[in-house]
Amino acid sequence: MKKPTDWIAVDWGTTRLRAWAMDHENQPVDQASSLKGMGKIDKSAFEPALLELIEPWLGEKPTNVIACGMVGAKQGWAEAPYCAVPAKPLGQQLAQAPAQDPRLRVHVISGLKQLHPADVMRGEETQIAGLLAQHPDFDGVLCLPGTHTKWARVSAGEVVSFATCMTGELFEVLSRHSVLRHSVDSETWDDAAFSQGVVEAIAKPQALALRLFSIRAESVLNGINPAGSRSRLSGILIGAELAAMRGYWLGTDIGIVGEQQLCQAYAHALQDQGAVARFFDAEAMTLAG
Amino acid sequence: MKKPTDWIAVDWGTTRLRAWAMDHENQPVDQASSLKGMGKIDKSAFEPALLELIEPWLGEKPTNVIACGMVGAKQGWAEAPYCAVPAKPLGQQLAQAPAQDPRLRVHVISGLKQLHPADVMRGEETQIAGLLAQHPDFDGVLCLPGTHTKWARVSAGEVVSFATCMTGELFEVLSRHSVLRHSVDSETWDDAAFSQGVVEAIAKPQALALRLFSIRAESVLNGINPAGSRSRLSGILIGAELAAMRGYWLGTDIGIVGEQQLCQAYAHALQDQGAVARFFDAEAMTLAG
Repeated sequence: MKKPTDWIAVDWGTTRLRAWAMDHENQPVDQASSLKGMGKIDKSAFEPALLELIEPWLGEKPTNVIACGMVGAKQGWAEAPYCAVPAKPLGQQLAQAPAQDPRLRVHVISGLKQLHPADVMRGEETQIAGLLAQHPDFDGVLCLPGTHTKWARVSAGEVVSFATCMTGELFEVLSRHSVLRHSVDSETWDDAAFSQGVVEAIAKPQALALRLFSIRAESVLNGINPAGSRSRLSGILIGAELAAMRGYWLGTDIGIVGEQQLCQAYAHALQDQGAVARFFDAEAMTLAG
Repeated sequence: MKKPTDWIAVDWGTTRLRAWAMDHENQPVDQASSLKGMGKIDKSAFEPALLELIEPWLGEKPTNVIACGMVGAKQGWAEAPYCAVPAKPLGQQLAQAPAQDPRLRVHVISGLKQLHPADVMRGEETQIAGLLAQHPDFDGVLCLPGTHTKWARVSAGEVVSFATCMTGELFEVLSRHSVLRHSVDSETWDDAAFSQGVVEAIAKPQALALRLFSIRAESVLNGINPAGSRSRLSGILIGAELAAMRGYWLGTDIGIVGEQQLCQAYAHALQDQGAVARFFDAEAMTLAG
């Protein structure tokens, strides 16, 4: 028999909603998810979308729900103001979301902001907190790959500074909406082409817009296959990101937090540059947070 | 009364079809255009799309139609194989398109290709030929801004080498399909923000993916308006392109061929870098070609 639900953890991003039933020892006993991301629903739809997933876990007494991610944005359910770095990743008071159902007490976690250069994060601060809960002495740089990859300098339990690269989203919009879509339609991965992309991007990172079209030209003139083109596109974008972020990762302890396949691509690219990174699982870090 | 049509010039790109009735002195006497670009129609639709525009200009005897652009691609009406540079821009034999209507004799102009680094062009070679027809001694670099901006080294009447940057398409896909769409929805132009984008991109061209997200963060945290964000996005992308292409344009005679507003943006960006460019009108150059 499952242990009873003590509280509920929620990661509510732009595209997905994920929830975990947690026992009193902070271990997950059940989980559920849907595609009702914050970017796809309006204010009145937050509570029904949440109930749809977590109703089976609710008892008669109110249950605490702790949510991180874009649900706390201005366009979200309840705005949880950004906390300025340097700061502990979860240093801020939680915002209360206006749930109608008396069984729900919904608390929303604040994101982090940086004033110069301007930057914002929501959701990743919880993964960083989770990592620090498990590795309180971590001192170095964390890379959290995704649609908007975050790089965070972490020291003495605080996020000192951070930066966001639109690498994942560039990959998405280029492979779906640009002329490259004809050349990169593949599910297969080509390690050598990925490495080639990383190496050429790092050798001449300013030539990004030029390199991108060369993927098309190579496919038209030299018949490079879609798997090679897709992997090279990924390599070029990640290589360009590593070149941009060199000041963050060079000569420091590097941790990568995220979904395994993407983390491996980053680790592989860093390894080509002589840097070694440790992996941390994103889901485990979110729950620990 | 209009002079009779001697031949018909056609510029058939991926997104648009444009035609001009030309007199025997090679001057345009009429023009027409539609959105039936090569990328939107299949093989059987080329002839009807063309007739729809040019039928009023046809007489009883066959009329020569000379077409440039993507219509000569493998997926176009009649494949006109690429000619390898260095080459005269219109050095190749024309391909014949299989028109059913006996009043039509359709000839398709070849594009140019470059083997190392791999690159292709279709349509721009005709503008370059037009420029050389009017300025036979031009020796320097031509920039042809557009969805896929072309840079061509021209000397002794030949295209020596060329390169393509996906700058225009990056601007399109980012402002329509990425998170930046929320921040750049504006019809207004902001010269200062454009210049700022150019300067920051040239100062650190490898930081593109980082700069792009900062447009979003500046709009969220500092309320930068959409006109400023859109102009800065354009400046960042064009600045990154200029950084990538510095080896082409530095210390040489520069000509810009294209639509006026876009050419001005490039000229403005080059001017910030101390380079002076001359303008040439794209339509006039296509017709001269």
